[in-house]
Amino acid sequence: MAQTYACTQARFSVSDCYTSCFMLKETLEQGRILADAALERLLPPGTQRPPSIHQAMRHSVFAGGKRLRPILVMEAARMITGSLPDGVDELGAALEMLHTYSLIHDDLPALDNDDLRRGRPTCHVAFGEATAILAGDALQTYAYEVMARLRTTAEARVQIIEEVAHATGTIDGMIGGQVLDLEAEHTHADAATVEYIHRSKTGALITASVVAGGLYAGADKAQVQRIREFGKSAGLAFQIVDDVLDVTQTSEQLGKTAGKDTKSEKSTWPSLYGVDKSLEMADELVYTANKRLDSFGERATTLKELAKFLVERKK
Amino acid sequence: MAQTYACTQARFSVSDCYTSCFMLKETLEQGRILADAALERLLPPGTQRPPSIHQAMRHSVFAGGKRLRPILVMEAARMITGSLPDGVDELGAALEMLHTYSLIHDDLPALDNDDLRRGRPTCHVAFGEATAILAGDALQTYAYEVMARLRTTAEARVQIIEEVAHATGTIDGMIGGQVLDLEAEHTHADAATVEYIHRSKTGALITASVVAGGLYAGADKAQVQRIREFGKSAGLAFQIVDDVLDVTQTSEQLGKTAGKDTKSEKSTWPSLYGVDKSLEMADELVYTANKRLDSFGERATTLKELAKFLVERKK
Repeated sequence: MAQTYACTQARFSVSDCYTSCFMLKETLEQGRILADAALERLLPPGTQRPPSIHQAMRHSVFAGGKRLRPILVMEAARMITGSLPDGVDELGAALEMLHTYSLIHDDLPALDNDDLRRGRPTCHVAFGEATAILAGDALQTYAYEVMARLRTTAEARVQIIEEVAHATGTIDGMIGGQVLDLEAEHTHADAATVEYIHRSKTGALITASVVAGGLYAGADKAQVQRIREFGKSAGLAFQIVDDVLDVTQTSEQLGKTAGKDTKSEKSTWPSLYGVDKSLEMADELVYTANKRLDSFGERATTLKELAKFLVERKK
Repeated sequence: MAQTYACTQARFSVSDCYTSCFMLKETLEQGRILADAALERLLPPGTQRPPSIHQAMRHSVFAGGKRLRPILVMEAARMITGSLPDGVDELGAALEMLHTYSLIHDDLPALDNDDLRRGRPTCHVAFGEATAILAGDALQTYAYEVMARLRTTAEARVQIIEEVAHATGTIDGMIGGQVLDLEAEHTHADAATVEYIHRSKTGALITASVVAGGLYAGADKAQVQRIREFGKSAGLAFQIVDDVLDVTQTSEQLGKTAGKDTKSEKSTWPSLYGVDKSLEMADELVYTANKRLDSFGERATTLKELAKFLVERKK
């Protein structure tokens, strides 16, 4: 177990590491199963009229993702209430739909023009460009329909929707980050720009996942604030590691095209700081993130382990 | 005035027509001004980072649309409360953002491949395909952020979001209709399929506009049901007239490419029933729609006039 998750940080003893890795593996596996089941339940079947779009949506959603965002949603909620609140898996599924919509559109020929995602043909390769554009659109639409129907108070639902919409929008959010990322190709952007892109393109949705989970579970303002700060640091760490993996791993290991950043002459964390320093900075960010959860005591253990996993994953 | 809006139906006297046309002109003009002001206020300025996407969003949103959907939202709300509820213009703006997102994506090379919209270059022609895809995405995202923040109860907001998301989704909604419409090219679809496409591709968002306006204003279940039935009939009538205009008007008159349906060998209302019979059916649908509003008495006058306008517009 310990080996699988490579818990080699000096801050933890070997026995701590063994126990926490075992727990983490359970969390990841259980979370993935719950998220998959919710997605299966919520998405229309591939036979539903018009079948092409529902098959395209399912092709990309069920392509073997780790379901990190749903797991972050669920564990943030569990941290507040001590157990998984009823229906929180559906909120996790909505966040995964948004993540998948962004991947489908990012992969399009006009954007990253990628043929491979999670080891399978991308949506437009399998279903054509028109269907891929509309499947991405529809996954975004469905996410909001699901969030509007969540089994929590109407007040929590509108707060969650506002949070998630802002995090996936153009100002400090996912789409804004994607635009800047495309514009940064061949420009050798500076460190501040690269950090801004990382925080908005990837970090914002990771932050929204934990904040939404907290809101679902009834976290108060001060708790939401601490969860938000955790998410911001952990989200940036996650994207730094993504940059590193793009350099150090093969396409086969990644399940997507490796070396893309180098090919598009993009400034990345390793191109700015080197691989070792980047990993050290990611470690430091996770340490900072986890400090923000100390006041939640024991209940924060799983979320802290997840943050460590984000930087220690092999793919 | 009477000439401008061509109120020539035998059901109305000349003096009725003159008065209602004058009122209608006011409604359309005031509604457009309110909707434009709300959109101007809600959308980030073109200077906001990253500027390219905000300029692209504004290019398509401020391309001279009639703002029919916001006007339907506002007039449905006014019918319930007797005056325009505070902030309902923002709900109207959200519906217009969704309409514009669908136009930007429909115009893309992979879909309708249209260069001209409302007499101006389409978004991808002006800003490139990548930015157009993301600008469409962002307008959808913004619409939900705006709806989550509306100045009405949280309960009304989640009902509105659920209604609108469903109406723009894949099952009997806008995206589903668009998929079937693309698949129907060169197939000579039957009348039932064409009706289904019209009801979902265009009718559903028109229905959602009036229903959302009603919900915003606190309409009860029975009222919402009557508004929904009004929207369904009026929405179908609107799309039938759109089909007719595609045949009878020039690109210059339409502000978009005319004759597209014929070129793509699509079954349309006029190809199935002929122009005269189509217009007669649209008239009949508006009559049916307006009957559903009779129980609202005098307050329904403007919405009824709007329904008539939908089938009598020249472009």
